[in-house]
Amino acid sequence: MKKKNKKVNAAILIIGNEILSGRTQDKNIAFISNWLNSNCGITVGEVRIIPDVEKIIINNIQILSKKFNYVFTTGGIGPTHDDITAQSISKAFKLKYKYHKEAYKILEDYYGKKKFNDGRKKMAMMPDGSKLIYNPSSAAPGFMIKNVLSFPGVPSILNSMIENCKKFLIKGLKVHSSTINLFTVESKISKKLGLIQKKYKRFVDIGSYPFFRLGKIGVSIVSRSTSKIKLRLVNKEITKFVRKKKLKILKI
Amino acid sequence: MKKKNKKVNAAILIIGNEILSGRTQDKNIAFISNWLNSNCGITVGEVRIIPDVEKIIINNIQILSKKFNYVFTTGGIGPTHDDITAQSISKAFKLKYKYHKEAYKILEDYYGKKKFNDGRKKMAMMPDGSKLIYNPSSAAPGFMIKNVLSFPGVPSILNSMIENCKKFLIKGLKVHSSTINLFTVESKISKKLGLIQKKYKRFVDIGSYPFFRLGKIGVSIVSRSTSKIKLRLVNKEITKFVRKKKLKILKI
Repeated sequence: MKKKNKKVNAAILIIGNEILSGRTQDKNIAFISNWLNSNCGITVGEVRIIPDVEKIIINNIQILSKKFNYVFTTGGIGPTHDDITAQSISKAFKLKYKYHKEAYKILEDYYGKKKFNDGRKKMAMMPDGSKLIYNPSSAAPGFMIKNVLSFPGVPSILNSMIENCKKFLIKGLKVHSSTINLFTVESKISKKLGLIQKKYKRFVDIGSYPFFRLGKIGVSIVSRSTSKIKLRLVNKEITKFVRKKKLKILKI
Repeated sequence: MKKKNKKVNAAILIIGNEILSGRTQDKNIAFISNWLNSNCGITVGEVRIIPDVEKIIINNIQILSKKFNYVFTTGGIGPTHDDITAQSISKAFKLKYKYHKEAYKILEDYYGKKKFNDGRKKMAMMPDGSKLIYNPSSAAPGFMIKNVLSFPGVPSILNSMIENCKKFLIKGLKVHSSTINLFTVESKISKKLGLIQKKYKRFVDIGSYPFFRLGKIGVSIVSRSTSKIKLRLVNKEITKFVRKKKLKILKI
């Protein structure tokens, strides 16, 4: 466990034509973001989804790795021709793209020497100096090089691996959140919410999100802060206002 | 209907802390991307998810509007303090942020003069010169300014509005796709797929995506092209190879 920093942030870079085209519904963004916040106190500051094109991957890795403490990539580390994440990251950092000895051994043991074909060998190729992120589902490891962590795109495999990168990460302060759900419309509460947000600007982020349930319109007011005390104060003010307006708080 | 261009592309900019934090699972990306391709022949080339922070919105609008034919934004056009998309886009293009007369009239008629409060009036504020994207669900219109089109973040409302922006868009060539599903592992087909991809590099994009079904591992081979003929040729080659390997093609 490394020492706690005040604010640690990350970007998520989803690499894959299948997500961009709308063919596949992404499930990794919400999972990684929730996991990072709950387990490491790391806040996701930006997400990008880009195609499997080398120069685009290189460009985004260079930009995001400078802008954020960590970059989490998903997709493009399998055995096929369209899996070009590892070689693109090598190029982005001007590092050799070569066999990682331990990864090679893991895969060779997993498949057996006879079945360890070229496609499978490719999954042991990584940027020189990578640390492995072990994969309990399907053996092929992810890797961390500099501040970039690369995972496969299949959600069930990614989910099974993510704990194995925890030891590499500097932890930040967890962002706590609290939600108040009401059957009302945003415009009825917007003025007061704006005033409360102004008052607690430095400590708490207040968001308001409409929803539909049981044929009725509602609003979720979500407050987020690294300080539980400030969060409680904001909640108190919102609750007081809501009661005054005679709006019912839903327990959902 | 405007004339067909060869390639028309778009970026999607999702504005909202609730998506970044993982609290809300995005549903708009896949919907917009599918709709754009099927209805307008427009390909989504990049997606970004960013927080509700003015300078970040401005920066992304400026970059993406130069890089792509169109930018579709979702979120941040409601009545509350965290809805800052319209004013940020105004600033990005150095345009006045002011009441749109027709939008004002639509909202005033919808709510009635007495209930047309400040929060609701805010939804008629837009970059000067915006064209309206009508909203059959909840009245508050989206808008198009230059090559940027702004929609609300609630999926059901966005879905109901999207047809209303079609008239503003230059149409491109539709990307057709075809999928072959097999129970196999990627590394068994990767070499041949790579060769086929190389041969049709200029015309067809071939992607390979692992899946799990009925306790078995499978691969979806997805080919995408604006040319139906080339797509058929690629499919023929893949099918021939698959049959030779005695792999069963699944009808799913």
